[in-house]
Amino acid sequence: MAQLIADRRDVDFVLHEQMQVTELAKNEKFAEFNKKTVDMVVTEARNLAVKAILPTQKESDEVGCSLEKDGTVKVPEAFHQVNALYNEGEWLGMIDEPDYGGQGMPKTLSLAAEEYFIGANPAFMLYHGLSHGAANLIKTFGTEAQKKAYLPKIYSGKWSGTMLLTEAEAGSDVGALQTTATPNGDGTYSISGTKIFISGGEQNMVENIAHPVLARIEGAPAGTRGISLFLVPKYRVNDDGSLGEFNDVVCTGIEEKMGLHGNATCTLTLGGKGNCTGTLLGEENKGMRAMFLMMNEARQLVGLQGFATATASYLYAVNYARQRIQGKHMTAGKAADAPSVPIIQHPDVRRQLLTMKAYVEGMRSLIYYGGLTHDLEGLAQSDAEKEKYADRTAILTPIIKGYITDRALEVTSHGIQVYGGYGYIQEYPMEQLMRDCRIFQIYEGTNGIQAMDLLGRKLGMKKGQPFMDYLGEMEKTIAEAGKISVLGHVTQRVETAVNRLSEVAVSLAKASVSDNILNAYAYAHPFLDVTGDVTFAWMHLWRAVLAARKLEKLAGAADMEKFMEKAAKNKDAAFYVGSLKTAEFFATNILPATMGKLDAIADVNGAAVEMPDASFGG
Amino acid sequence: MAQLIADRRDVDFVLHEQMQVTELAKNEKFAEFNKKTVDMVVTEARNLAVKAILPTQKESDEVGCSLEKDGTVKVPEAFHQVNALYNEGEWLGMIDEPDYGGQGMPKTLSLAAEEYFIGANPAFMLYHGLSHGAANLIKTFGTEAQKKAYLPKIYSGKWSGTMLLTEAEAGSDVGALQTTATPNGDGTYSISGTKIFISGGEQNMVENIAHPVLARIEGAPAGTRGISLFLVPKYRVNDDGSLGEFNDVVCTGIEEKMGLHGNATCTLTLGGKGNCTGTLLGEENKGMRAMFLMMNEARQLVGLQGFATATASYLYAVNYARQRIQGKHMTAGKAADAPSVPIIQHPDVRRQLLTMKAYVEGMRSLIYYGGLTHDLEGLAQSDAEKEKYADRTAILTPIIKGYITDRALEVTSHGIQVYGGYGYIQEYPMEQLMRDCRIFQIYEGTNGIQAMDLLGRKLGMKKGQPFMDYLGEMEKTIAEAGKISVLGHVTQRVETAVNRLSEVAVSLAKASVSDNILNAYAYAHPFLDVTGDVTFAWMHLWRAVLAARKLEKLAGAADMEKFMEKAAKNKDAAFYVGSLKTAEFFATNILPATMGKLDAIADVNGAAVEMPDASFGG
Repeated sequence: MAQLIADRRDVDFVLHEQMQVTELAKNEKFAEFNKKTVDMVVTEARNLAVKAILPTQKESDEVGCSLEKDGTVKVPEAFHQVNALYNEGEWLGMIDEPDYGGQGMPKTLSLAAEEYFIGANPAFMLYHGLSHGAANLIKTFGTEAQKKAYLPKIYSGKWSGTMLLTEAEAGSDVGALQTTATPNGDGTYSISGTKIFISGGEQNMVENIAHPVLARIEGAPAGTRGISLFLVPKYRVNDDGSLGEFNDVVCTGIEEKMGLHGNATCTLTLGGKGNCTGTLLGEENKGMRAMFLMMNEARQLVGLQGFATATASYLYAVNYARQRIQGKHMTAGKAADAPSVPIIQHPDVRRQLLTMKAYVEGMRSLIYYGGLTHDLEGLAQSDAEKEKYADRTAILTPIIKGYITDRALEVTSHGIQVYGGYGYIQEYPMEQLMRDCRIFQIYEGTNGIQAMDLLGRKLGMKKGQPFMDYLGEMEKTIAEAGKISVLGHVTQRVETAVNRLSEVAVSLAKASVSDNILNAYAYAHPFLDVTGDVTFAWMHLWRAVLAARKLEKLAGAADMEKFMEKAAKNKDAAFYVGSLKTAEFFATNILPATMGKLDAIADVNGAAVEMPDASFGG
Repeated sequence: MAQLIADRRDVDFVLHEQMQVTELAKNEKFAEFNKKTVDMVVTEARNLAVKAILPTQKESDEVGCSLEKDGTVKVPEAFHQVNALYNEGEWLGMIDEPDYGGQGMPKTLSLAAEEYFIGANPAFMLYHGLSHGAANLIKTFGTEAQKKAYLPKIYSGKWSGTMLLTEAEAGSDVGALQTTATPNGDGTYSISGTKIFISGGEQNMVENIAHPVLARIEGAPAGTRGISLFLVPKYRVNDDGSLGEFNDVVCTGIEEKMGLHGNATCTLTLGGKGNCTGTLLGEENKGMRAMFLMMNEARQLVGLQGFATATASYLYAVNYARQRIQGKHMTAGKAADAPSVPIIQHPDVRRQLLTMKAYVEGMRSLIYYGGLTHDLEGLAQSDAEKEKYADRTAILTPIIKGYITDRALEVTSHGIQVYGGYGYIQEYPMEQLMRDCRIFQIYEGTNGIQAMDLLGRKLGMKKGQPFMDYLGEMEKTIAEAGKISVLGHVTQRVETAVNRLSEVAVSLAKASVSDNILNAYAYAHPFLDVTGDVTFAWMHLWRAVLAARKLEKLAGAADMEKFMEKAAKNKDAAFYVGSLKTAEFFATNILPATMGKLDAIADVNGAAVEMPDASFGG
């Protein structure tokens, strides 16, 4: 079982060879994270994931959560013990400041640990992901008193955190929210409203829950400009840190969902008895800005959820395909006595597995690259450097959230298909992975919102320079790859795609600020798609450059035939040959369709917009 | 609610304008199916679907089926009453011979009725779909005695039918099956074995169940050449038609599935007590041939299931998008007082809706075209004509089963996305539609098997002539469209795609019988994809030709601006403008990616095959 969830060999490759995570240890901040420590963290995370978290996955789905008569929400029984282990390992505060109980780890490394945890049970881990997000808000916008009262409790897992944005009439349009805050005159506010779709809004693993809440102070401007952020605990917190009275935050219902059953999706009524108070988190009317500042992390976390689910699906599928004997080899013709073979030998199954692998490994590289970008921003020695990495994060975020979760659903669907009929039944893990995965395209801003973010905010920001710098990074890799002859036609295809993306990006950006705005935005999602495709092509080329160099050493020559010979005998060589073939597959099987999609975007056809509403029928 | 499930306007368009179903009434066989009768059948089907079947959909999912202690399977309670209505309307035998209790209807018409029924509840309708398939086997291969004993009972719904192929070690590879048949000396056989994944294998809506069973007679050759087909009832049937003793067909378990909960997926043990007998259906060792002959209908039914689920999802989505108010219009900029608008006005939502519409309407046209082909084969006056339509059916089947169910899953996923968070919760219909839909890509031959069927059997059959004739039909439409100026750039794109498909088909067919066979088959599924895309492009062009002609009459000019003006005032014109814009959308948004995919296929890159097994990692 140990090999399931995530592929350790590839985790190590991306951490050490591609992202060179231990280079970060040259900085004092991360000095203790040498190779040995990094590897130990990953090993411990994997152990916890495989031995403790993974066994809860089935109960998580089958039993789910229940709203009890006393208003508490019961999580699956198995979660309590695992949660204790998770807290004992102090995993929640991996990347946070030691001053408040964090571990001060590079984010790049923490992502590897989280990949294992989330792949083992995304519903369980979502409680922790949200706690971390809430802690981030408190860390960034809280007063010293708020930080001292809340952060150590959250990092230790004694309390949890959530995020209260959505209301029935305010989903993607947060500015339409109705929840109100009335000053009490003592610095606190009375909060009143109903929030829906609150993941982990109520649960019985913790003593208290910290709810960051978006609300409008009476008399504040309409829309997003009049929204403030409040910290509203489930139980009030006394000055000495002990818990006070119940703060009138009542769970009035939980949703029955397609998947992610182990995580309670709550409707919370605040101040139904007029007894809910909160304190400002940050400044009045600056709530949306606070949310935006936190959004990159939250959205990248959703991308990670999609990825972790997809990588689990891939590993189940590839192992199943090696074991499941069914049908004869295609070259056996009609010979009735030919033996049946493992289905991995059938070309259609291989194509599916390689599609899954190409997406999953593209995801891993991109997500860890997002972590590295975050770490480098934190270490930046100049404002210019800091800005460079912050801009990179801004561009990466919608790709990581939107493109990865779209592809993750595809991967989990392929996973079902590789299992055939067994993929559709609950006895096997595949269908749950797909059901769990489907929400990632929706929450933290639907992928349509991500696409608009990329086209409307990120592509054109600072006159397009950060986007062009991003493509510039790809060109650096292409230049490196150009020196390696075995990569010849892959490099050339990636280069063509990057150049074409650059052209199309410029023309679409122009259209999006012209009279053609509506038509341009009808291509926002296709533009996200192609940007993601080209990004993955880059990641695979980057991997291939590293792999080819290693193979040259292992095989003693820069020759594909020699590489293949070596791969037959040497595990490492087999891994690197896999990287070369995966890059080739991506360039020859996926990029051609990308080129066609780029043509479609360049066309900015108006059919979707011109279509009269009545013509949609129904 | 009446407008949900299927779009009557488009059903009528495809039936009457595109397929011209009433032309069939010129033949004596279908003489009574004039326009009035056709419309009445559709209206009655819609009424039954909306008023009776649709209300069972929720219970079907939430309660599902249960295996009782006495070995019977309990279907959702609500099914019994609806089933009585369905039987009363004599819907099961719509297309069957009146001699045995059928209605003698054209298949083209029956598909419209089934679209409504299946869209209202695919799990309920699957019992009937399988009954019909079993009846078909009896009709085609049964003795007169078998036909008289079984067909009227099945058509009237008193008995049901199933199909027992799959075993634990014989899924896609049917030839590996282990079930045995031992001659009893009296013309009957003792059957012994265990079959899995049997939809409706046991259920409590009927008095008896007819199981066609694939088994191997002792001493028969290995593989598919030694398989015979048997008719095995649940209760034995006396000569007078009354029921005899229990035939030792025991349901030993039912599966918990991702969806389609209302249909019991059974494990059946035959002859566990040595007391199961069956009679041959057709000739010894010709069981696989019998199955193949029935496969076209069974597989086209699965395509219809995917389509019906997708069309329901589309109609829910488009209605929701008209009602759900969220966010400001894009052109409102940052004006805080701009009103919120229905989400159908957002370009990204429109793009999703138009994608759904384009796929759903392509499906409807293709499926009804499959029905018409079937009807024309039945009416053919010469062997050559009969052969032409039979060949057409052979080519259409993998496209209808494989391409349509692949796209159907995409459509249901878009449906969830249009609903946002509400799409993911069980209170709304969208997530169930996607869960139900996921099996269609798997059963009756996985879509990988469909793709191999298209590439390996259909593309090259009779030296490729039937496939080229199929493309020739497309060229006829292109020639018609060439006369209509408003279709200019759509026609040109479709023509380019058809020509390119023709080239790529020839080169892939050659590769598939060369040393390059494994690489070629790694492109079987992509080839199915592009063949489906081009087929849909053709269907949309065909629709556009008809629409443009009608619009010319309605608007008094062949001018797009005039068409749009007219559409603003006239419902019919709005419908036809929708057809034009949908064709334009398909040609400009989907076909460009198809062209890229065709390039990838033409390349026949070997990465997936060359990849060493060990390089897949895991």
